[in-house]
Amino acid sequence: MGGSLALALKEKNPAQNIMGITRTRATLDTALQRGAIDSASDQLAAARAAGLIVLAAPVRTILKHIAGLSEIASDGAILLDMGSTKSRIVKAMNHLPERLYAVGGHPMCGKEVAGFDAADAGLYRDKTFVLTPTARTNENAMETSRALAQFIGSRVIELDAARHDEIVAAVSHLPYVVSSNLAGTVGDFAEDDATVWKIASTGFRDTSRLAASDVQMMLDILLTNSENVADLMRSFSRRFGDLADAIYNGDEDALRALLEQSANIRKSWKQG
Amino acid sequence: MGGSLALALKEKNPAQNIMGITRTRATLDTALQRGAIDSASDQLAAARAAGLIVLAAPVRTILKHIAGLSEIASDGAILLDMGSTKSRIVKAMNHLPERLYAVGGHPMCGKEVAGFDAADAGLYRDKTFVLTPTARTNENAMETSRALAQFIGSRVIELDAARHDEIVAAVSHLPYVVSSNLAGTVGDFAEDDATVWKIASTGFRDTSRLAASDVQMMLDILLTNSENVADLMRSFSRRFGDLADAIYNGDEDALRALLEQSANIRKSWKQG
Repeated sequence: MGGSLALALKEKNPAQNIMGITRTRATLDTALQRGAIDSASDQLAAARAAGLIVLAAPVRTILKHIAGLSEIASDGAILLDMGSTKSRIVKAMNHLPERLYAVGGHPMCGKEVAGFDAADAGLYRDKTFVLTPTARTNENAMETSRALAQFIGSRVIELDAARHDEIVAAVSHLPYVVSSNLAGTVGDFAEDDATVWKIASTGFRDTSRLAASDVQMMLDILLTNSENVADLMRSFSRRFGDLADAIYNGDEDALRALLEQSANIRKSWKQG
Repeated sequence: MGGSLALALKEKNPAQNIMGITRTRATLDTALQRGAIDSASDQLAAARAAGLIVLAAPVRTILKHIAGLSEIASDGAILLDMGSTKSRIVKAMNHLPERLYAVGGHPMCGKEVAGFDAADAGLYRDKTFVLTPTARTNENAMETSRALAQFIGSRVIELDAARHDEIVAAVSHLPYVVSSNLAGTVGDFAEDDATVWKIASTGFRDTSRLAASDVQMMLDILLTNSENVADLMRSFSRRFGDLADAIYNGDEDALRALLEQSANIRKSWKQG
């Protein structure tokens, strides 16, 4: 996400001065080589030089960095994060010293693959970018964040942290746990019969795609949004039980009603 | 499926004589116009002229047609179906008169959209085509069916009906019910907050794609494979419960183990 952001910014305005900070030296070398960043550091302390600090990392890593930056960042600096859950991050940002400003952010795009090799200047184009106000948000910090998101082609929506986390539990975290559990269930079944993998086709491919997401990133997401995710998993399970009953009992009317409701929902959804 | 088959056959050998039979006159007209078929009829009785009769329809429609064809088809004709479940169809084929031959078939590809407008000559290319022997399969019928499948670019696997139906319950029907139930659950949630649909992105898109499948076709599939599907839904639910417990209790080790198992399964799967 950070690499894609740097590429997108440089594509629009090569004159911008961007420093990349990460512990992985190889990532910094590749980013320098591809002209995504002007300077590189493996020390968070280097962020002292920045007027705008964008945090792109798993949620619990962002939480650690916010704590570190409360000492490091220069007076008047703006922190903007790109973490996938917002309540815990906004709470941490609320406790930053008054000399700093901070806005929660979440671009609604992503890749299963991490690292600079997967970076893509077009990742944010035509995507929704959620901005979440914090106790350390002033007008300038919000406008700077909004301008950044729009500059890289995203559409901005402002949402408070609690509402954001409820919504992403439904449209992002629930699809992931469902997809992951599907791959696991089919994997268990395939232990007895490897022909399964020859028969699996596009339906399994798309439905299980998210199961291959980066596990560390997903652990951070699920464990910092566990109540909302658990609530939605309960709703899913209740409805899934109704569906299983209708199938097992051959109750065609009940089954048709459930399947048609879902088909109509999916067909009427227009992305973006 | 039938339209795509006719197009694929004509693409490889325009001289083949293909008759299209369906009740929808508009479909026949389009198929004639696009050169997919040489003649058309809306009467099953027209199949009397055919040496090879391919049944492309929802499963319970195929079952009806097999019964009809037992009187209609000419001596020595071969019936091949393309239905998505095989046990019920093979059972019906087993009861055909001795003057007819029959092979169960299932090409592992498909579209959510039915009708000739969605027909695609490349649909079967590089796909797995399952052939299922019946009591009315002789060597000639099997070799004719195999040649047809290979002619349109598919890879043939022979599987008996019971094993086929177990496997497709796992890799095809379970993904569908999971996808359908996800769309339904998110739809219920979105009734209180339409912003959900603005935030939904590629993850929801892919995981819920199958929910938009043709409901009548899926009803036929689920109701003719209900025991296998219900079994797998139970396995899914058990594992999903473990996943929900780990998330709700913040049990990071248990959660990591489940997510990593699924990620490894999905990453190591190579399609086809």
